[in-house]
Amino acid sequence: MKNIKVSLKDNSYKIISGSGVLRKLGARLKKLKIGSDAYIITNSYLKSKFGRILEKSLQDFGFTFCFKLVPDTEKSKSLSQTAKILSDITAYDQKKKIFIVAFGGGVIGDLAGFTASIYRRGTPYIQVPTTLLAQVDSSIGGKTAVDLEQGKNLAGTFYQPRLVLSDIDFLKSLPRRQLVSALAEVIKYAVIKDPGLFIYLEKNMGKIIAKDSGCLEFIVARCAAIKADIVSRDEKEELGLRTILNFGHTLGHAIEAAGSFKTYNHGEAIGLGMLCSCGISRKLGLLSPDDLKRIEVLIRRAGLPKRVKRVDFKKIINAHYHDKKFIGAKNKFVLASGIGRVMIKENIPLELIIEALRERF
Amino acid sequence: MKNIKVSLKDNSYKIISGSGVLRKLGARLKKLKIGSDAYIITNSYLKSKFGRILEKSLQDFGFTFCFKLVPDTEKSKSLSQTAKILSDITAYDQKKKIFIVAFGGGVIGDLAGFTASIYRRGTPYIQVPTTLLAQVDSSIGGKTAVDLEQGKNLAGTFYQPRLVLSDIDFLKSLPRRQLVSALAEVIKYAVIKDPGLFIYLEKNMGKIIAKDSGCLEFIVARCAAIKADIVSRDEKEELGLRTILNFGHTLGHAIEAAGSFKTYNHGEAIGLGMLCSCGISRKLGLLSPDDLKRIEVLIRRAGLPKRVKRVDFKKIINAHYHDKKFIGAKNKFVLASGIGRVMIKENIPLELIIEALRERF
Repeated sequence: MKNIKVSLKDNSYKIISGSGVLRKLGARLKKLKIGSDAYIITNSYLKSKFGRILEKSLQDFGFTFCFKLVPDTEKSKSLSQTAKILSDITAYDQKKKIFIVAFGGGVIGDLAGFTASIYRRGTPYIQVPTTLLAQVDSSIGGKTAVDLEQGKNLAGTFYQPRLVLSDIDFLKSLPRRQLVSALAEVIKYAVIKDPGLFIYLEKNMGKIIAKDSGCLEFIVARCAAIKADIVSRDEKEELGLRTILNFGHTLGHAIEAAGSFKTYNHGEAIGLGMLCSCGISRKLGLLSPDDLKRIEVLIRRAGLPKRVKRVDFKKIINAHYHDKKFIGAKNKFVLASGIGRVMIKENIPLELIIEALRERF
Repeated sequence: MKNIKVSLKDNSYKIISGSGVLRKLGARLKKLKIGSDAYIITNSYLKSKFGRILEKSLQDFGFTFCFKLVPDTEKSKSLSQTAKILSDITAYDQKKKIFIVAFGGGVIGDLAGFTASIYRRGTPYIQVPTTLLAQVDSSIGGKTAVDLEQGKNLAGTFYQPRLVLSDIDFLKSLPRRQLVSALAEVIKYAVIKDPGLFIYLEKNMGKIIAKDSGCLEFIVARCAAIKADIVSRDEKEELGLRTILNFGHTLGHAIEAAGSFKTYNHGEAIGLGMLCSCGISRKLGLLSPDDLKRIEVLIRRAGLPKRVKRVDFKKIINAHYHDKKFIGAKNKFVLASGIGRVMIKENIPLELIIEALRERF
């Protein structure tokens, strides 16, 4: 079991990860003095598969609980779903000692976190992420959001959970494509911050893909620690430190959007975005051919795509102008200058972007 | 012109009040570096009456602007209205240098503030309150909210504005009932914190009711200073210091709700709630007969009701159990122990509450 702290003064919290930690949830919550009544937002699959363990752990420590099931699709991340939950929650919340449990992947985490942040101007919540992507990324850092018709994550808050509990056992039933796409974010952490993790991934990629428990425990804890460190120093993305977490995301988002979020899922698109970003670094002389090669090989070995297929080139270029991180007309890229080292550059010439993207077709 | 600071570290801001200050808005905003494009949420009456002054002040300093009109009723404080505005705002927000202007009374302030707090996880906004109630109370302190079917203000955030600009000239066209009901909150500030203000009100109530500019300027600035001071020391109502602002609200809310928010408006109900609360204080020997008399006289002279009519007694008692400030089964009252001095008491016996309420029938 690993124990990592996100240090944010009054909003600090722990990330507990490891095999079987779900059984320890009740005991952990008791210590937190978080309330007495758990309102668990999840989907029907997770409830049927892990619900009993969760229930027992809560019951053993005297908590009451109820489950709220939401459909397991991005469509659940909406203001109308939020309204439905808020309406339901008021009926359950009689003693006013409620807390919310986000029990699921990124969609449920974002939706439950957002709901918690606005119910009675802020209700305590915890994250119990069940996918690798949520465990290494979205459950940590307090970004919550729902989508608008006009774009993803346009309505949200910064609102920290009181605990993140990542049980590695959840990952055993994770479909391979989801595992692989999460590895894009894992590789991202290695490239932006951690040469040691990069070497570990190079050595153990086969075991990771085979869901070796020890390997999964290691990478979940290591990635969580990196994200916790960055978030601790720049909670609300005001200092620019969180920006490096967007490595691969400028073109990655554009590829994802140009494929209507269907051709590639988030991780696959980010993998391609990192390859494009490294191409730009190489052309600017920031990244050595050797390092570029190592990144390319690792992305391929993770099972991520190395070429863009079935997405229109021009659509990607158009979409990249709408990146929400652009301020005014400037673009902004996180560029690798080595393994474990990145820098932020604005106003990358369009020709260079086009050239780097072209190489991935 | 008066200038008051709300001190909240990174979230500090100024409250500017006085006659004609709307004309200075553009200049103030320029200094704040708040963005370039104003999204003004207001109603059609305010736009037609004061829109030109606002437009000119913004234009003179190079801001662009657009108006979003919402109906002037409590119904506008809804998640569905929030969704409509968010959808509209994305179309206007091309340069991503938007800020939101809450130009109206409490309903618009709450709705606009809430929308600002969630659009792109927080967009700068300012309050330009146009009613006395909003100027002395709701525009200050960063409480934002919309209503759910199940109750008022159940979805919201703590999110501070970047500026509050209170032009006394708005109050000249305020209907008398609105002015009078706001005076309940003004008297509240005097009783909980400020014997000097209480004496001022005793001396000048006639001029205040007649909307004398000097008097209105004085009370707006004085009340804003009291609220700013309390909020500065307990931004998120975590330390219990903000609790004293609920003087008169425990039974006031119950009277308001028992009358279905129609028989009495907020201020009138709070006036009655303060009278009940003072009755309890008197019975507990906390408040002298003289001080009780002075409070009763001032409330009556403000034109506020001194007796509950057309609301069912039992309904009020039932409603008071649902006060959102109750934790568990305990009730909590803010009780005056003099003019300018209050204390917080829990578990007031029901018989005492009934007796104090009975006296107001």
